Amino acid sequence: MFYPEPLAKLIDAFSRLPGIGPKTAARLAFHVLRMKEDDCIDFAKALVNVKRNLHYCSVCCNITDTDPCRICQDKGRDRSIICVVQEPKDLVAMERTKEFNGYYHVLHGAISPMEGIGPDEIRIADLLKRLSDEHVQELILATNPNIEGEATAMYLSRLVRPFGLKVTRIAHGLPVGGDLEYADEVTLTKALEGRREL
Amino acid sequence: MFYPEPLAKLIDAFSRLPGIGPKTAARLAFHVLRMKEDDCIDFAKALVNVKRNLHYCSVCCNITDTDPCRICQDKGRDRSIICVVQEPKDLVAMERTKEFNGYYHVLHGAISPMEGIGPDEIRIADLLKRLSDEHVQELILATNPNIEGEATAMYLSRLVRPFGLKVTRIAHGLPVGGDLEYADEVTLTKALEGRREL
Repeated sequence: MFYPEPLAKLIDAFSRLPGIGPKTAARLAFHVLRMKEDDCIDFAKALVNVKRNLHYCSVCCNITDTDPCRICQDKGRDRSIICVVQEPKDLVAMERTKEFNGYYHVLHGAISPMEGIGPDEIRIADLLKRLSDEHVQELILATNPNIEGEATAMYLSRLVRPFGLKVTRIAHGLPVGGDLEYADEVTLTKALEGRREL
Repeated sequence: MFYPEPLAKLIDAFSRLPGIGPKTAARLAFHVLRMKEDDCIDFAKALVNVKRNLHYCSVCCNITDTDPCRICQDKGRDRSIICVVQEPKDLVAMERTKEFNGYYHVLHGAISPMEGIGPDEIRIADLLKRLSDEHVQELILATNPNIEGEATAMYLSRLVRPFGLKVTRIAHGLPVGGDLEYADEVTLTKALEGRREL
């Protein structure tokens, strides 16, 4: 190793992050070297605080620094709808639309036999507990539109049948601003199937 | 902001790094969330240690945790040659070749009037001091083969003329494994100019 040890350690730490190879890691470490000491210490504190101050919401399993999380604490939301998403990032994407006013449930993954993730590895049990406890009328399945997400949605829709809820799946179709010419066959088929009267 | 504050702060810290946009920053922050606490604390320590334990070598201006740096301390090297590079990364690239056994000088930049970097902004004064102190016979200018690097090399070669040293510039030409067909005109011209008898 040609780098002094503290630098080599930081390059190693950066290169463990996803999508960051050794060259990018070295570039980032050299950037840190040129940062102000205060900014660098703030960065280090942010890293430690994320581990120490964040945990899962006991209701919706989202990542939060309060318990229950701010959304679950919000009394102004519609208690009759729960939107099920795979990841906290997906919840944020939903919130950005400003169109949904119910509560969420974060699964932290999707069923994926290929990766050995079964129903017990994701937060399905917590969801079932909420369905029997609360006066929920609709469950929106907003898992990703890929094989794992579809499988999870199918599994959940069958699993919650005894609760007698309305179970919906977010629509598949052409993305807004997309181009019919470049749409793949599966998306186009789904868009046709899901056509609505104007 | 839809993320809890500790997470938002970490995303912000990551997105200040070069080449990392808000989406990548969020992905990295979520990765940190899933890291073991010990690994996360090691990462934070590495960040702080880089700022606290590294400084510039008082001889060659390279980044080091000892003073002088390990290369300048090494008595087995050839004291008659100094290789001038722009950045610590360039020194590491030279060391990887295992072909150079002299000492280095790191400029920490190149002359660039466009970015307002003149000869006083880079470590040229430290280099001149070394030339008068030591029994140096050759100065290899290994700045980058671009406009700033060339300008710096030209400037240095004129500046050190009074010392009566042999001043050399690393060769321009086709990279090994390269393809004549795809070489740009300037590189090919340089390769022709620099041709050698076999």
